[in-house]
Amino acid sequence: QSLKIGLIPADGIGKEVIPAAKHAIEALGSDIPKPEFYNLLAGFELFARTGEALPNETVEILKNECDAALFGAVSSPSRKVSGYTSPIVSLRKTLDLYANIRPVATVDAGPDGKPKVDMVVVRENTECLYVKQENIISTENGLEARATRLITERASRRIGKMAFELALARPRKQVTIIHKSNVLSVTDGLFRETVRAVPSLPEVAGRYDNVTIAEQIVDSAVYRLFREPEIYDVIVAPNLYGDILSDAAAALVGSLGLVPSINAGDNFVMGEPVHGSAPDIEGKGIANPLAAIRSAALMLRHLGYYTGADRIDNAVNQVIREGQVLTPDLGGKSSTDEVVQTVLKKI
Amino acid sequence: QSLKIGLIPADGIGKEVIPAAKHAIEALGSDIPKPEFYNLLAGFELFARTGEALPNETVEILKNECDAALFGAVSSPSRKVSGYTSPIVSLRKTLDLYANIRPVATVDAGPDGKPKVDMVVVRENTECLYVKQENIISTENGLEARATRLITERASRRIGKMAFELALARPRKQVTIIHKSNVLSVTDGLFRETVRAVPSLPEVAGRYDNVTIAEQIVDSAVYRLFREPEIYDVIVAPNLYGDILSDAAAALVGSLGLVPSINAGDNFVMGEPVHGSAPDIEGKGIANPLAAIRSAALMLRHLGYYTGADRIDNAVNQVIREGQVLTPDLGGKSSTDEVVQTVLKKI
Ligand SMILES: CC(C)[C@H](C(=O)O)[C@@H](O)C(=O)O
Ligand SMILES: CC(C)[C@H](C(=O)O)[C@@H](O)C(=O)O
Repeated sequence: QSLKIGLIPADGIGKEVIPAAKHAIEALGSDIPKPEFYNLLAGFELFARTGEALPNETVEILKNECDAALFGAVSSPSRKVSGYTSPIVSLRKTLDLYANIRPVATVDAGPDGKPKVDMVVVRENTECLYVKQENIISTENGLEARATRLITERASRRIGKMAFELALARPRKQVTIIHKSNVLSVTDGLFRETVRAVPSLPEVAGRYDNVTIAEQIVDSAVYRLFREPEIYDVIVAPNLYGDILSDAAAALVGSLGLVPSINAGDNFVMGEPVHGSAPDIEGKGIANPLAAIRSAALMLRHLGYYTGADRIDNAVNQVIREGQVLTPDLGGKSSTDEVVQTVLKKI
Repeated sequence: QSLKIGLIPADGIGKEVIPAAKHAIEALGSDIPKPEFYNLLAGFELFARTGEALPNETVEILKNECDAALFGAVSSPSRKVSGYTSPIVSLRKTLDLYANIRPVATVDAGPDGKPKVDMVVVRENTECLYVKQENIISTENGLEARATRLITERASRRIGKMAFELALARPRKQVTIIHKSNVLSVTDGLFRETVRAVPSLPEVAGRYDNVTIAEQIVDSAVYRLFREPEIYDVIVAPNLYGDILSDAAAALVGSLGLVPSINAGDNFVMGEPVHGSAPDIEGKGIANPLAAIRSAALMLRHLGYYTGADRIDNAVNQVIREGQVLTPDLGGKSSTDEVVQTVLKKI
């Protein structure tokens, strides 16, 4: 039995960090089934060349051949390009990867022995403004554009369940619901109430009794994230708030280059570093590979390969703790490759 | 000639900080026309008592009698309350106060002599998801809620002009446009292009030649706000992004209790501290009055009373610098009243 993994480096530094993640997986040897990799195409650069950002073939191979995948990063056009749709947004929807799980934690403990920042952002990944239903009309006062923000009970419930399930496995066992229901009483009201109601669902009766529920209005959530990050354990949020909050949380741990994620559905999981394609450092060989490597670990953990995931995570944490071989985003002077080699040695 | 100012303390600590702002204005003596105050009602507490969050009378007096106003803060219902609409959102729309201007700056200079954080968030104040057009339907898969996000050329242009005008008066002269046009290519695309096109409008020809334009995608904007706040000068953003970014920026300067704002239209201006009604400290006499006092200064400045505004701002900055009389949110032990008295002495 082999482990079939699609690799979609896509744009910019995605092409530099996905190979790093691949090496980390290969280094695990018999801790996981023999990995088999599929190199798959997607991205804005591909679109610019071929007119297609996400070829059917990529989707078909992911669906029919792969057990999991790793996605790199996408570039964004600097101006509206007709016909272009971000392939990562499409992939999340097409594969119904409804949960974007982004753990953000410091490696070092604070004075009290607990890590200073230790949270997981659980971001709904298929709806909200990401349904991309937009239109524009011309009126006597000029152009008017509208977008639809969709929040469904079904998607809110399944992301809520995911959040409670994750909280259950953590020492703090707290779920903080993010919303703006003081303004969006209907859509965010539905999100809030549906998530709040998860513990009362018959199928999970009693299961979440020890999980506490908190909530924060999104603006104040970001404020408190910076002032008192320790108040958060599991954060569950509609798509756009989750997008913003996870970047905000990344700022707390020193670099976006450290923060991994998985896009998880009921039948598929795709690892993805939270950072973007970073055109400013593309090709310089200094992209931080740790977020991608950690995304591989997160993907393996989701698939149940705990030993393999732990080995990768421990290696990465050691490299960060030692602080000798780090890329410039972390104040270091090392190259992507040097960091990768150091991690591989420790795996 | 008198200066007619509506006072709308509304909820929670709004009732503690608006009187402070009033005292600061009164202390200016002949630097401004004799102030005349109108005590006006609004808020969630009022709604709970009377079923009305924003009485017509309040709106009418603001429109027909007042030159300006000061708003305190509103509480948010902890659950959806039918018929309730946030009075601050209504006021901004009813009075067409299309620009929410939120300067966020540290008082002390960094090693290079420049203030470490010195930015102004210029938030569009009338549309985006704040149009509150929401509906909910029942389907075979459960409830589905939708909200409309409206972005118009007209509102984007006038907020853009406001941003460029503010940038022109600042040493850095930079406008950073916030958007998420990699996902919302139509709505945020319209916002971005319209703001970008402001300097080319015939009526401002040449005026903004020295203003540089930058842009940031909202998630990365928040990340960079925390990592490199010095990259920002004037930030212009659609309503919701501006809401989140201004709270995020407030975290940089130590407390939401320091950050003032004005809601400005072409014919009216309303000062408003950025903080909320803070139910946790309500009635304890420890609310930080500085954001409200600074909002009064900002309001006066907008009306052209520069000397008066400067006197208030200098007094507040001195109190912060001295660090002797501060409320608990800033690590101090003083009461609201002690801070107010100290500020008044320095005005
Ligand atoms: C590239 C962009 C479409 C994407 C998103 O908004 O989801 C990114 O910001 C992310 O967080 O994965
Ligand atoms: C209270 C709320 C409706 C308001 C807003 O979202 O505009 C507040 O957060 C603000 O920033 O003034």
